[in-house]
Amino acid sequence: MAGKGRVKVGIIGSQFEAEIHAASFQMIPDEAEVVAIASPTPGHAKKLADRYGITRVFTDYRQMLAEKDIEMVTIAAPNYLHAQMTIDIAGAGKHVLCEKPLCMTMEEADRMIETCRRKGVLLMYAEELFFTPKYVKAKEMADQGAFGKVYLVKQLEKHFGPHAAWFWDVQKSGGGVFMDMGCHGIAFCYWFLGRPKIESVYCQMATHVHADKTKGEDDAICVLEFASGAVGLIEDSWARRGGMEDRIEVYGEGGVTYANLHMGNALPTYSEYGYGYAVEKAPTTKGWTYPVFEELWNYGFPQEMRHFARCVRGKEQPQATGEDGRLVQEVLYAGYQSAATGAKVQLPFRPDGVKRPIDLWLGAR
Amino acid sequence: MAGKGRVKVGIIGSQFEAEIHAASFQMIPDEAEVVAIASPTPGHAKKLADRYGITRVFTDYRQMLAEKDIEMVTIAAPNYLHAQMTIDIAGAGKHVLCEKPLCMTMEEADRMIETCRRKGVLLMYAEELFFTPKYVKAKEMADQGAFGKVYLVKQLEKHFGPHAAWFWDVQKSGGGVFMDMGCHGIAFCYWFLGRPKIESVYCQMATHVHADKTKGEDDAICVLEFASGAVGLIEDSWARRGGMEDRIEVYGEGGVTYANLHMGNALPTYSEYGYGYAVEKAPTTKGWTYPVFEELWNYGFPQEMRHFARCVRGKEQPQATGEDGRLVQEVLYAGYQSAATGAKVQLPFRPDGVKRPIDLWLGAR
Amino acid sequence: MAGKGRVKVGIIGSQFEAEIHAASFQMIPDEAEVVAIASPTPGHAKKLADRYGITRVFTDYRQMLAEKDIEMVTIAAPNYLHAQMTIDIAGAGKHVLCEKPLCMTMEEADRMIETCRRKGVLLMYAEELFFTPKYVKAKEMADQGAFGKVYLVKQLEKHFGPHAAWFWDVQKSGGGVFMDMGCHGIAFCYWFLGRPKIESVYCQMATHVHADKTKGEDDAICVLEFASGAVGLIEDSWARRGGMEDRIEVYGEGGVTYANLHMGNALPTYSEYGYGYAVEKAPTTKGWTYPVFEELWNYGFPQEMRHFARCVRGKEQPQATGEDGRLVQEVLYAGYQSAATGAKVQLPFRPDGVKRPIDLWLGAR
Amino acid sequence: MAGKGRVKVGIIGSQFEAEIHAASFQMIPDEAEVVAIASPTPGHAKKLADRYGITRVFTDYRQMLAEKDIEMVTIAAPNYLHAQMTIDIAGAGKHVLCEKPLCMTMEEADRMIETCRRKGVLLMYAEELFFTPKYVKAKEMADQGAFGKVYLVKQLEKHFGPHAAWFWDVQKSGGGVFMDMGCHGIAFCYWFLGRPKIESVYCQMATHVHADKTKGEDDAICVLEFASGAVGLIEDSWARRGGMEDRIEVYGEGGVTYANLHMGNALPTYSEYGYGYAVEKAPTTKGWTYPVFEELWNYGFPQEMRHFARCVRGKEQPQATGEDGRLVQEVLYAGYQSAATGAKVQLPFRPDGVKRPIDLWLGAR
Repeated sequence: MAGKGRVKVGIIGSQFEAEIHAASFQMIPDEAEVVAIASPTPGHAKKLADRYGITRVFTDYRQMLAEKDIEMVTIAAPNYLHAQMTIDIAGAGKHVLCEKPLCMTMEEADRMIETCRRKGVLLMYAEELFFTPKYVKAKEMADQGAFGKVYLVKQLEKHFGPHAAWFWDVQKSGGGVFMDMGCHGIAFCYWFLGRPKIESVYCQMATHVHADKTKGEDDAICVLEFASGAVGLIEDSWARRGGMEDRIEVYGEGGVTYANLHMGNALPTYSEYGYGYAVEKAPTTKGWTYPVFEELWNYGFPQEMRHFARCVRGKEQPQATGEDGRLVQEVLYAGYQSAATGAKVQLPFRPDGVKRPIDLWLGAR
Repeated sequence: MAGKGRVKVGIIGSQFEAEIHAASFQMIPDEAEVVAIASPTPGHAKKLADRYGITRVFTDYRQMLAEKDIEMVTIAAPNYLHAQMTIDIAGAGKHVLCEKPLCMTMEEADRMIETCRRKGVLLMYAEELFFTPKYVKAKEMADQGAFGKVYLVKQLEKHFGPHAAWFWDVQKSGGGVFMDMGCHGIAFCYWFLGRPKIESVYCQMATHVHADKTKGEDDAICVLEFASGAVGLIEDSWARRGGMEDRIEVYGEGGVTYANLHMGNALPTYSEYGYGYAVEKAPTTKGWTYPVFEELWNYGFPQEMRHFARCVRGKEQPQATGEDGRLVQEVLYAGYQSAATGAKVQLPFRPDGVKRPIDLWLGAR
Repeated sequence: MAGKGRVKVGIIGSQFEAEIHAASFQMIPDEAEVVAIASPTPGHAKKLADRYGITRVFTDYRQMLAEKDIEMVTIAAPNYLHAQMTIDIAGAGKHVLCEKPLCMTMEEADRMIETCRRKGVLLMYAEELFFTPKYVKAKEMADQGAFGKVYLVKQLEKHFGPHAAWFWDVQKSGGGVFMDMGCHGIAFCYWFLGRPKIESVYCQMATHVHADKTKGEDDAICVLEFASGAVGLIEDSWARRGGMEDRIEVYGEGGVTYANLHMGNALPTYSEYGYGYAVEKAPTTKGWTYPVFEELWNYGFPQEMRHFARCVRGKEQPQATGEDGRLVQEVLYAGYQSAATGAKVQLPFRPDGVKRPIDLWLGAR
Repeated sequence: MAGKGRVKVGIIGSQFEAEIHAASFQMIPDEAEVVAIASPTPGHAKKLADRYGITRVFTDYRQMLAEKDIEMVTIAAPNYLHAQMTIDIAGAGKHVLCEKPLCMTMEEADRMIETCRRKGVLLMYAEELFFTPKYVKAKEMADQGAFGKVYLVKQLEKHFGPHAAWFWDVQKSGGGVFMDMGCHGIAFCYWFLGRPKIESVYCQMATHVHADKTKGEDDAICVLEFASGAVGLIEDSWARRGGMEDRIEVYGEGGVTYANLHMGNALPTYSEYGYGYAVEKAPTTKGWTYPVFEELWNYGFPQEMRHFARCVRGKEQPQATGEDGRLVQEVLYAGYQSAATGAKVQLPFRPDGVKRPIDLWLGAR
């Protein structure tokens, strides 16, 4: 499957993440175009397709996979479906771009990687933080020696709850906010530090606010120890009011940097009347707000999609792979185990027959 | 000249602005490509061309104009050359993208506009602030009614001196910092408010720091009165230490917003060792700094070039034209006159036979 | 009048400013105590007195002046009453602390100064910005040479309208926001730069939002030229939404500093439920707000009162005097004249027989 | 010991902390005065005494304790001396104000408390964060219900190393940065949340940068679990470049607030030439810096001293006591134990016969 011209893309999903995919591909018309969407709820995919001028719509993604010209399929579906979808996509000879977290179990992760390898397709892992321009700048400075040896990297991501109902159902999500957003922080620290071995994981978890909606944790603190001696500190919350917050801090023996994607880029604004849009998950546009500009671009989504489209064309090598996703998955398991036991968990950590990361924590409560 | 595919671009110039053009076009490969550069100093154009993989290099831009495939030529040359170059480019049947300010005299502005009209080519005026994403967001909010009636718009742009020596020579530049950067603020306020008639101009100017280098003013404050009753307040300086500063404030009866392209986007950073690059005109990368990320994109240059390339293809209508540039030029003249007299100057203002805007001020000192 | 122990203070007024006086003296119990309040509206003074444990209350300030033990009287009354009150207080042999602006006319200013001189009492001018700790730090750095020669000082003060109804009535206030708050900016720039001669004044004024309430301007921009070559840029508004804003910027050939008393000190806060108090003139405590801490202290009021009390005891020399107030008054007149003519006005400027500064502007509209 | 007038204070110590005491008492002349200083190194105390106009100087603090008029003695000496000094001071019938952390061992803490109780003197614990005005504002908002139920409180304090050499010597300090500054964070979270029972402690510690100087940790992360379900997250570092950093974050189900004592109050400043003083532990005053204003006041030191002086006079009840210090001490022990074991440690935690908190960690390495 050599391929030329724009990469033809199919999207599985029709909600928040699927729209991000559609919008992001639209911003890189030289590299790719979305030609089809599949989503089981009739009408949902159609609406999204109409908004983005996408002509082919399916309720069964397997039908979409029969479309010959599609070269890459992105998965923006609930976590528990990722593995089967990946295997089906690979089976159809198409490249896979799977949203985070990669899947539910370590066995699934293994099977996804192995199947894609066997079928000769790429398994790409959608970690947009590797492409967030402000964070990329921080990493560039670190790699240029600005901070000397980096000993602490922090990433924090907080808002007041997920954008789709299935996240609250741990059967479908596999966990709470640590599963949903902790995966970003784990991947980020690992990537920022140059992928050193992760030695241990400690997690503090609680359901402070949303116990009426979910068994999952809505707040998590995670400490990673790397073989290099560096430490990662990750905070995630579904209990933080006032809209989205995503920021990092980097501490080295020779310096420090702070990057905030929200308050740190925003236009501090007061409005009596409100306006169109402030920021992801903002409760209002009236009063004081922190609107952002070109939100998708500042998160790095179009850059991420450009990269993956170029990988399909062989112009670049995937910077976020199934292997990255599998490692993150292992850390998620270790994290829930740690929250259950109150002790740091050493890696490698491969508990047998655990269906979801969160089961390790829920079982112990 | 219908044209298809990528717009073929030639650049006149080889320094700071020319490089911004080259780099910006490189970021929009789907819309345009730079195929040639012309610059009189042998070697200069060659170096830039090599950095950006541009194959054709000329020391005389008129030779470049003979290249048949070139459809658009950008002018990144000293101000005093803009008019003749524009007329030559139009004469060659190519579209013109002229850097700010448009030219030296009102008569030149008229001739540039008239020639391009006659030759059927576009005269586009390179005001990137119309494309600066953070400022575009501010305008969107204003247009959505966030602030009710806007009564005051401010734009400020300051650093410690221009990037090329010819700016210091008022024979070549036509003025000091008000000519160099005030043109941004004038255009910005006018555009932000929806292009209401400008009624009067007041300017405060002085050469506080760089009198050894230039007869031009290195600091300027400008007040614009619009027919709508709104006021514009513009500040420009070549005497501000610590790197580039560019920010706006918008005040309406129903709200307010602040947008800062530098400190307001930056990663506050401390480094003992330094790193690659902080921000335009930063004195150092050691100690505390305010590095920006994706600087060209955050200024709006690639977005501007995309727009102009699409205008050439007839996909969009120019948002910044020779007429805009001419109006800015008139305000520049009025500003220097005001600084000379200490009184606001009403528009229209068309002094006869004045060779450079700054002459109105220098003559009065 | 030697005096020992705590300075005994009487306050004229019972509203916003009078309360600031009472609260500020309460914070410096080692230097002064408020023993009496006078306010014409029965009940008003009593309420304030009760809140601050002040035992003597008068409806006629002249009765208060008969109290032998009172050594200093502060004037927190409408501007048009300042002169007569000052003369009465001085006549009673007590020191005067007069709120800004000093008075209505230049003749009044002369008389106030002359009377206090003759009576041997201090005429102190309540410019708290000379005591604002954050601004004092900026001045210290400037005086230590941090910025080399300072060429531009800016002060800005904005909110959505005054705290008492008499401000809207130009008969009582003498002017709009420039009279109310421009006096701060004028005094500040003058003081910051070391009291160089003021050579000229330019003003831009308009009534953008509150024309239904006042004939006074609700927005003003003012440019001062100093004999040193430095420039002052002052902005004031009663038309800025979202609470109080007070900030300065200082530009020198060797550096720059920014000090913001509000957003720049605040605790960025989001609250669904609201809380006690955010900041002067804040519209709400719900949603995002910028609450400040120890507001009076951060404005410098208790420090100011301590200074003036110590002046009464001869421990310090007044840093803000009637002469300062008179100069500010002259600049106010020049400012309104400039707004009327659209031209900068040279100092000295002593128009004869003008009853209020704003008359110069209103007469010309 | 009823006492009237200003509380007479003696200080033990002559370095950084002792100077803070002297300067702070000087700011509250109505409540207290420092009359004596004791410090073993001849000359040290004298120099400090001269700077602050203190007349009595001792090399042996026991001699100072013989001074009849001294009513309160503050301890600004290395940690390992706190207990004996406290007992001696109490033995002399004087009130004790002991710097943080309270002491070395739990047994010492018990003895200090018991002795002061028996002798009828106050044992006050110098935790200035209870008086930091910006943090007090955060607590006021929380107590007013701004955030609903608070589930997470964070406090972070970082710089590049302590101000006196004895901190590096764990024999004298009892631990590294967690002992030195973690005690602030522990006390802060506990106080902010209304002193709920602390249930467990988890700590991550490492010596990233200063292993050549100390066996102590130079970076620590600590997670506290409270009986209320709330969590405390504390970060401390001696390895952070660029000057002092002290900030908090508060997350509740109904809101959030951020308070930063340094960047969040500072005047962002650029200076080519430098100036007097930027902030505690700043490496330079050249280039970009974040100078603070009225630093002691913004940390809360004079407010703290005022409170303690008033406690001595019976006007207030101590808000920070030996019992607070003992609890912090217990958490310090638990923290080092946790860092050693990699597991959270439940309170109460009273290991027998451990001479210093850090021994629990060092023994395990």
